[in-house]
Amino acid sequence: MMTIRETAHWLNQHDHFLILTHRRPDGDTLGCAAGLAQGLRNAGKTAFILHNPETTARYLPYVKTYWAPEGYAPAHIIAVDIASEDLFPLNGKEYLGRVALCIDHHPSNTQYAAQTCLNAEKASCGEIVYALLLALVGGISADIAAALYVAVSTDTGCFAYVNTNADTLRAAADLTDAGAPIGDINRALFRTKAKSRVLLEAMIITNMEFYHDGAVAVVIITRDMMRRAGAGENEMDDVAAIPGAIEGVIAGITIRELTGPGDSKVSVRTTPLVNANALCAHFGGGGHATAAGFSLDASVEETKRRLLEALDELFPLGRRTGVPGQA
Amino acid sequence: MMTIRETAHWLNQHDHFLILTHRRPDGDTLGCAAGLAQGLRNAGKTAFILHNPETTARYLPYVKTYWAPEGYAPAHIIAVDIASEDLFPLNGKEYLGRVALCIDHHPSNTQYAAQTCLNAEKASCGEIVYALLLALVGGISADIAAALYVAVSTDTGCFAYVNTNADTLRAAADLTDAGAPIGDINRALFRTKAKSRVLLEAMIITNMEFYHDGAVAVVIITRDMMRRAGAGENEMDDVAAIPGAIEGVIAGITIRELTGPGDSKVSVRTTPLVNANALCAHFGGGGHATAAGFSLDASVEETKRRLLEALDELFPLGRRTGVPGQA
Repeated sequence: MMTIRETAHWLNQHDHFLILTHRRPDGDTLGCAAGLAQGLRNAGKTAFILHNPETTARYLPYVKTYWAPEGYAPAHIIAVDIASEDLFPLNGKEYLGRVALCIDHHPSNTQYAAQTCLNAEKASCGEIVYALLLALVGGISADIAAALYVAVSTDTGCFAYVNTNADTLRAAADLTDAGAPIGDINRALFRTKAKSRVLLEAMIITNMEFYHDGAVAVVIITRDMMRRAGAGENEMDDVAAIPGAIEGVIAGITIRELTGPGDSKVSVRTTPLVNANALCAHFGGGGHATAAGFSLDASVEETKRRLLEALDELFPLGRRTGVPGQA
Repeated sequence: MMTIRETAHWLNQHDHFLILTHRRPDGDTLGCAAGLAQGLRNAGKTAFILHNPETTARYLPYVKTYWAPEGYAPAHIIAVDIASEDLFPLNGKEYLGRVALCIDHHPSNTQYAAQTCLNAEKASCGEIVYALLLALVGGISADIAAALYVAVSTDTGCFAYVNTNADTLRAAADLTDAGAPIGDINRALFRTKAKSRVLLEAMIITNMEFYHDGAVAVVIITRDMMRRAGAGENEMDDVAAIPGAIEGVIAGITIRELTGPGDSKVSVRTTPLVNANALCAHFGGGGHATAAGFSLDASVEETKRRLLEALDELFPLGRRTGVPGQA
């Protein structure tokens, strides 16, 4: 494990870096990679990012992607926001076992890299990259600030998630002072939704079923619904949060039809009154106490039926019939 | 106009305060009143808040309301976050022309008070009260921090609105350090919605009409829709933001049926490409360049028809037929 100071020293002593981002890249991993690449370049180094084939257009206006050109031969591999080698990008197999430095904030980090700079107290990896760049070059440029603000703000749901702390808010303040266009970024990422996402949300809510006096909300998302709304995988971010965000709901359940009718994926979000992990363990899944999931080779309706049976055991009040849109 | 230091000195020199909040009180005015009352009490003063009859339950878990008891005879009246006497609380008539100190952040403040402590650079009035309490007593207790965090976070949409700046984020960081339970507050105020609100949103979106290749989105909210969703006035906060938050929409129009079929209220939200104020001026209304409104003695359908005609003049591309849920 390396401190910020040691990591900055290591970066200063080396050169010719390639930066890896994780599978299904989010704002934190992309913002960290862009900010770090730019910071290393500002320090006179050669630094590129391995092109991540799953990158969506969402963050690109604020995150410069220094994709490595064909034939780039890096001397040192850096992973940002990647907790384990399982999460390497789809085209990253050749770097298994070869990461020199991992910069991360996940407590579950498997220490797969030769050196790890980890701070699990941080809400985002972006805050760690920010501290590193301060130690390395004493300040950041406006484009770095924008990339790191994307990292910090997206990993905290614009400072609304429970991981947000005083340090997060102070880092965001510093990034704003350094020139991050937070008004534009916030509007694009947090105050605007694709029409297809909004239409899908309306369908989801209209068909939502409530059980146990509104304590349990069940959402089903079929491929047909996605087709009718015009929604693709890019529009599915955080859909599992929808039922749990309704007042009075202590278990919000989202059942998605994945590849077809016999392939269901369940996400459970709970308040601390219900153990999501225990519920999902019934079905061979797991996760955290308030957010867990599992997959089932069954239709969404069959999955719902079996899940409600398991819930009846957890909620001894007796199950109420679900009526769309009503408690 | 008084500085923070002068205002703190004035508060220190006086006693027996009554604090006024504005009509339809929001998190900023209530948080400021609670934080200031508690801060003055911590400084050994007597301070109460005039009961605001329009107070909803929304903020009360985090905002102590020191409502003045029957017969309380204040020596000095303080107004917080009240830009003009028109915005006095419904039961505040007797204090017209009698406010000794107004603490505010609205540039439109009419200077109706004997003394005004105004900083229009601040995103929330809560930041000014925070600075005042630091000057007055050198620090704040956890309950003040909670109240002022409600003020700062609600006036900035949890730091996502364009008024958010580095000072806002730093104030929020300080309040977090001082003990504001930001995880609980964020969950309650920004990550939870009443079921009736969610159902109403689904109806609104399902029936939304798009014109001009999706550049214009029109939403109609009838009393019948509110009744079917179970939504009251408390669930109508910021509904006008819904159509404008859809990708590609440059004019989001919300038409509400108020008291009955002949009483429509229109809210227009635009990007800088369309002047909302100019559009609403057609109908005798007004506001700002990107947020304006008007009322019309006409049905919602008639209002829509007339509004679309006015839009046709503003959008010379030619009007497209609106199809619910489609561009």
